[in-house]
This record gives sequence, C-alpha cells and structure tokens, in this order.
Amino acid sequence: MSFLELKREVYEANMELEKRKLVTYTFGNVSQIDRQLGVIGIKPSGVPYEDLKVEDIVIVDLENQIVEGRMRPSSDTKTHTYLYRQWQSIGGITHTHSTYATAWAQAQIAIPCLGTTQADYVYGEIPCTAVMRNDQISRDYEEETGVQILDCFADRDPNESPMVVVAGHAPFTWGANAAKSVYHAVLLEEIARMAYLTKTLSPGISQLKQELIDKHYLRKHGKDAYYGQSK
Amino acid sequence: MSFLELKREVYEANMELEKRKLVTYTFGNVSQIDRQLGVIGIKPSGVPYEDLKVEDIVIVDLENQIVEGRMRPSSDTKTHTYLYRQWQSIGGITHTHSTYATAWAQAQIAIPCLGTTQADYVYGEIPCTAVMRNDQISRDYEEETGVQILDCFADRDPNESPMVVVAGHAPFTWGANAAKSVYHAVLLEEIARMAYLTKTLSPGISQLKQELIDKHYLRKHGKDAYYGQSK
Amino acid sequence: MSFLELKREVYEANMELEKRKLVTYTFGNVSQIDRQLGVIGIKPSGVPYEDLKVEDIVIVDLENQIVEGRMRPSSDTKTHTYLYRQWQSIGGITHTHSTYATAWAQAQIAIPCLGTTQADYVYGEIPCTAVMRNDQISRDYEEETGVQILDCFADRDPNESPMVVVAGHAPFTWGANAAKSVYHAVLLEEIARMAYLTKTLSPGISQLKQELIDKHYLRKHGKDAYYGQSK
Amino acid sequence: MSFLELKREVYEANMELEKRKLVTYTFGNVSQIDRQLGVIGIKPSGVPYEDLKVEDIVIVDLENQIVEGRMRPSSDTKTHTYLYRQWQSIGGITHTHSTYATAWAQAQIAIPCLGTTQADYVYGEIPCTAVMRNDQISRDYEEETGVQILDCFADRDPNESPMVVVAGHAPFTWGANAAKSVYHAVLLEEIARMAYLTKTLSPGISQLKQELIDKHYLRKHGKDAYYGQSK
Repeated sequence: MSFLELKREVYEANMELEKRKLVTYTFGNVSQIDRQLGVIGIKPSGVPYEDLKVEDIVIVDLENQIVEGRMRPSSDTKTHTYLYRQWQSIGGITHTHSTYATAWAQAQIAIPCLGTTQADYVYGEIPCTAVMRNDQISRDYEEETGVQILDCFADRDPNESPMVVVAGHAPFTWGANAAKSVYHAVLLEEIARMAYLTKTLSPGISQLKQELIDKHYLRKHGKDAYYGQSK
Repeated sequence: MSFLELKREVYEANMELEKRKLVTYTFGNVSQIDRQLGVIGIKPSGVPYEDLKVEDIVIVDLENQIVEGRMRPSSDTKTHTYLYRQWQSIGGITHTHSTYATAWAQAQIAIPCLGTTQADYVYGEIPCTAVMRNDQISRDYEEETGVQILDCFADRDPNESPMVVVAGHAPFTWGANAAKSVYHAVLLEEIARMAYLTKTLSPGISQLKQELIDKHYLRKHGKDAYYGQSK
Repeated sequence: MSFLELKREVYEANMELEKRKLVTYTFGNVSQIDRQLGVIGIKPSGVPYEDLKVEDIVIVDLENQIVEGRMRPSSDTKTHTYLYRQWQSIGGITHTHSTYATAWAQAQIAIPCLGTTQADYVYGEIPCTAVMRNDQISRDYEEETGVQILDCFADRDPNESPMVVVAGHAPFTWGANAAKSVYHAVLLEEIARMAYLTKTLSPGISQLKQELIDKHYLRKHGKDAYYGQSK
Repeated sequence: MSFLELKREVYEANMELEKRKLVTYTFGNVSQIDRQLGVIGIKPSGVPYEDLKVEDIVIVDLENQIVEGRMRPSSDTKTHTYLYRQWQSIGGITHTHSTYATAWAQAQIAIPCLGTTQADYVYGEIPCTAVMRNDQISRDYEEETGVQILDCFADRDPNESPMVVVAGHAPFTWGANAAKSVYHAVLLEEIARMAYLTKTLSPGISQLKQELIDKHYLRKHGKDAYYGQSK
C-alpha cells in the first residue's frame, strides 16, 4: 500500500466519524497501520473535520517520528503506536469522546453485557480501565494511556472486546483496519446508550446469562459462525 | 402476488426501517408472507440497508428452504417462519434493535400501559417474554425465539398487542403485511421512549385504569371504532 | 376571513407540527376558530401529515356539525369546540403527543416552574388535570376531555398558562390563533424536556422562588413588558 | 474594525447558534466588543434566527445606549455590557437556554469535572451562581445577572472557566470574540450532557482527581501546551 492509499483510507475513516455524528469539533482521531512499511497514518492534531483533507493525514513510524506530512499528528499518537506495537492482530484504531460511551468512562464502570446486541460484537462486558496512577500521568501521559488499556486486557483477548472505556476519559476501539475500528466506535456508542437506558430503568439488572452470550457471540464469530453472507 | 411484487413490498418495508432511523448498520429485518404461495420474502443476512436492492430479497418457504434468491436469508428467518406457521392472522413481521424498545427488553420488563398513546394501539401492556431456557438455546436458537414469543401469548391475542419485547434481546412486531409491521415497530419505539421517561420521572407510577385503556383501544379497534376516515 | 383562508392557516399550523418533529404518523391536530362566522377549521381524522392538503381541513360549527369538507374531522374535535365555547379569549388549539410533555402527562404530575425558560411563557406551574372519572369516560369522552381541562383551570386564567398536560393522555396548548398554539406546543415540549432532566438530576429540587417567576413572566407579558420589538 | 465588520461577525456567531441547534425560536443572543471603539454589537430582542439580517445587529455603547441600529437590542444587553466592563480580557459573550446546560442551572448545581473532555476546556468545575437575591431582582435584573456571575468568579479567573450556569436561569459563555464564545457554548452543552448521563448512571461519582485535570487542561492551555498545530 502506498502512503497515498493509506492516507486516503485514514481520511475516509475519520470523515465517517463525523458523518455518524460521533464527534464535536476536533474531538476524536482514527489511524491505520501498514505493518509491512512499519508506519501508521493518523489525523493531524486539532483540525476540524470539515477542513480535513487527504494530504493532511500524517504518516508516523512506530516510534512516533513523522515520516511524511506537514502537520503535527494527533496528540494521542503515542497511545495508538503503543497499542499497535503490543497487539499485532489489530490494523486500525479509533478514539472518540462519543456521548454515552464517555458517560460510562466517566462513571468508571465496565459496560455489562445486558443483551444480545452487545453479545453480537463483544464476548462479555466492555472493560473499563483503572484510573491512571499519578506516576503514569507525570511520565508520558499519552503512552501511559496505552499501558492503561493493556493492563485492562491482561487476561483478555483484544479481539473479543474490540473496545474499551478509559476511566475518566473516553473510549478507544480497534479492528482489522481504520474502517472497522470506526464501525466498532459506532456500535459501542449505540450499545452504551442502550445499556445506560437499561441501567437507569432497572438499576438492579444483572448481566445476561453466559449461555446467551456464547450463543450470540459465537454465531457471528469463530469457526461455526453462520451470520452474514458466505465468504 | 408475484415473487417480484412480494420482494418489492419487503424491500420497501425494510428501507422504511432505515428511513425512520430504527436501525444501525445491518440490524433488523422485515418479512412478508404470501399465504397462497406458501412463501415469505425476507431481508438477506448482514447486508447494509444502503446496499440493499429489490432482487436481494430472499424467497423462502415455511420450512426455511430458499425458493428464489442468490443470498443467504436473515439469520432470524426461523423465528419469522415459526410465527407465520403459528399465527394465521399475521402477514408481516419486523425485528429491530431499536434503542428504547431494546432497553425494556434488556431490563426484562413488560411495558405497562401508562397512557392513551399506548392504549390507542395495544390492549394493555406490551409483554416481555421469559429469558430463553438453556435447553432452548442449545436446540435451535432462532426457532426457539419464536417459541419464546408464543409462550408469552398463551393467553393473549397477538392482534391485541402486535408487538413484544424478547427478554435480553430486542423487539418483534407484526401486522397485516410488512408495511404494517414496520408501522408497529415505529410506534413501539416511541411508546417505549415515553414509558422510559415516565418511569424514570415517577418510578412508582402504576398502569392506567382499565376504563381508559378500553375507551382508547376500542375507539380505534373493533366494530365500534370511530377514528380515521370511514372505510 | 373566508373558509379558504381559515383552512390555509390551519393547514400551515398542522404542517408546522410535523416540521418541528412534534408528531409521529397521524398523532396530533391543530384547529383555529373564526368567531364571527362561528366555525372552526380542524385537521381531518387519521390523515398522515405528508398526505395532508389545504382542502382536507374540515370546517365544523361549535356544535360539531360539519359545515364544509369531505372528510371526517379529528376524533378530538369535541375537545376543541368545548374549549372554544368556554374560553372566549383563545383563537387556536393544538393537541400533540409530544414525547416529554406526554411523559409528564403519563406521570400525572404538573410541571413545576424550575427556571426562567418556563417563567418567560407560563405564570407558575404547567397544570396537570385529574385522571378522568369513569362516569366521564362513559359519557362523551372527547367533550369530557374539555371538561377535565376546564376543571383544572377553575382558579386560573388560561392565558397565564397556555398549556396543560392531561393525566394519562398528552398535552393541549392554545393561543390567539392556530400558529400561536403550535408555538406554545413547541415551547412546552422543550420546557418539559428541561424539567425532566432537572428532576432526574436533582429529584428534591423545588420550584423557583415567586419573585423570579414574577420578574420573568412580567417582563414579557402585561403592560410593563419590555421584551421584543415595540409594537 | 468598522461597525459593519462588527455586525457581520456578531451576525455569523448568532447564526452559528442556530446551526448548532442550541436555540429554540428567539432564545439566546451573542455579542462582541470592539474595545477601541468602546462599543458592542448584539442581537436585537425577540427576532427569530431565520429572519435575522446583518443590518439588524444593534451597536450599543458600554452604558447601554444605542449607537447605531433601528431595533431594540437584546433584553439581556445589560448583562453583556456589565461583563465587558468588569472583564477586560473577554471579547465575546454568548447566552443560550441550551437544554442540558439549562438543566444544571435549574438544578442549581455546579458541573463537577468528571472527565477529560471538561478538563480540556475548563480548569475544574463549571460554576453555578447563587440564586438571585430579591433586592437584586427588584433593582436592575439584567445588570444584576452580571453581578451574580461576577460574585461567582470572586476567586476564579474567567479564562479558566469560560462558562457558567446561572441558578434557575441558563448558561453564559465567553471568549476572545463572538465566535469563540459560541464555540464554548457548544462545548458546554456537550459537557453538560455527558455529566448529566454520568451522574444519573452513577449518582455517587466524585470529581476527577486533580492530577488528571491539571494534565488535560495544561496540555491545551498555558506556556507548555502541545495540542493542535504550532502557532
């Protein structure tokens, strides 16, 4: 893939965030990695979506050095590169402050699996990280946001929950490429909204039983999946 | 009715779901039965609405065998055919994960009749099924979703509540044809939203008295109805 | 004013309801009276807004007899004519099932004056009627809805609260003409939404102090008003 | 800057309020000051946004006298001029009754800093004024609204919270010019919405720890800021 193709895919994924109404002003950023070239394309910092152009996408290597681009990359770049370095299986990352997902992040609560809508995409709850420790904040805040997320997935496969809410902050989602990570950001926002409504309607509700989670997750994922058109 | 006419009506009903903003991505599906031909038309599995075409609608018989169509039918097809086999009076079925109706399904609570908006369309509460038993999940999940719904209507006429919320899952609605079932899906979402707001504003509120439910339901339904234009 | 002019104003006021997203399908109706001619123009029963035409508006006298029009008038016509007969000062009436106002109606609670937004338009709380008695329901339901509203204004000037929520049902609003009654319906929905949010955020909050209500209401109404452009 | 340029900037900032859906009908007003000329441009009172024209913007001096314009200025003009006189650092002011911010004002609660979205723009909580005293109401209500706000910032730099909710009323925001004050009004509404959802989901949640507030606020503000493109 050429830098231009990479920029175009990253640009389109960023614009999809705007189209799906997940962002206010300059909030949010999407990146995609080209593992062969060892670079990522990412949104420039603080640029409104209506002004964004394909050529504004910044190409950065995995040590956060600009390879091509006239603009400063997203201030969250180090979180993206950290996750790409740690998780070989992911190809795209989206960060938003979408309203309902951010409310769960601010409440510092994992989103329990309350229905099959969530179980169709996530195997169990959507985790919430711990609040960042002071030594992390004073070290390298953006890279430590990546560490925060990794710690939260110590016993969990990132493909089984392609999304997380960072305590006191907001969500990150990922996927095979930039477009898939945006797709997960849209789903997370809708799932977070349904879960908010369910919890405020019935505060004592508990998670769906495991057999139903298994059934829904596994009919869409893994070797026995039967949802969608055949590959 | 020809297969093409059936496909067109099913296609248009599915697109209405999108237009009314009841679906995210590929969520949801609408079908319609032609009882003379013994077939249903139904949305293909996992196809986004913006890509859907009339010819993509799959024609399936009541034993779930594809009669015409190049695509795999909705993964919920067996729920549809089960309901059509059990309820001779219905002609169309809609399944969505619309936000507020799904919140009630996830809270596992029937929607009480709190006002005349609901009483205009439903005779009493909108039932919520039991959570599916493990033996059902391991048998034939989609067909058992139909059984779950039937069990819930053991003592109730499906025409008096053309809608249900399936516990831990999401709503199903039905009607004389596909378009009417979508109409009920839109009404259910609005009724579910009003009921959510009412319950969170006044958690102790109880159901409307029966005399008011009778009055509103019966002024729109049955032999003494006087709402709308004369037939 | 000719019947045609009356129909046009009523038509436009009804379409404004749709444009302001206060109605779902056929919900809602707006009327206007011509007191010299002793007739009202009102929406026909059960006609979707997208199909409504100027000539569909029905002209009815104050005893509910059709004077001109091929369609059946709104099933709520008797509520409108009752209010016009009782309140000489009003010229237009709007009935909707707008979401937040209906939630207050279903919760059977008057909307307390929690802020100056409400005090700018209503002098104190927005009243909620009593639930209709059984003898009223079995008499003449739609006319009794008017009685229900009148009872609620026994000690109150309808111009000081040009809006009410009918318990277990939905709101009615009124004004100098059809357009003003729709204006009040839009304001009521926004006020009801703010009040819902305030009450769920702080359930113990009490009504704004009278001095602030006086100040805001009276700077917009009465002989010392100074809001807006001079007349 | 000529009066015409000032009017144009004020006009565009007012229209942005409408475009961002922060206003209903005539609610809200935006002004901007030209400190060299000692005048402000402000929206006329009670004019709907769809009818507003550049030439309708009223030019007023800091003692509230009309310098140029055929219309009466916003009834809130004295609040604006009071704030401009007291705070030399601000260049634009926006007043809205945006839904969620107004709910906090009506609940009479400062918006705690629950997440980094708020900390990116405000250094700590968004203050809520005291309810206006009766002697203030009977003196000069609109000017006293300015006093109310000043009292609330006795120990606080207005640049560290370019926004406030006035108890029982609604928000005011400010910035370097009219456009920036509208930008803050949009952010406040989104922050207020997230905070509402967080508080209703988890009523016991407490403010984010100071270290995280420092980190986020200071990476966007002050001499060590590193967000956005270099100046």
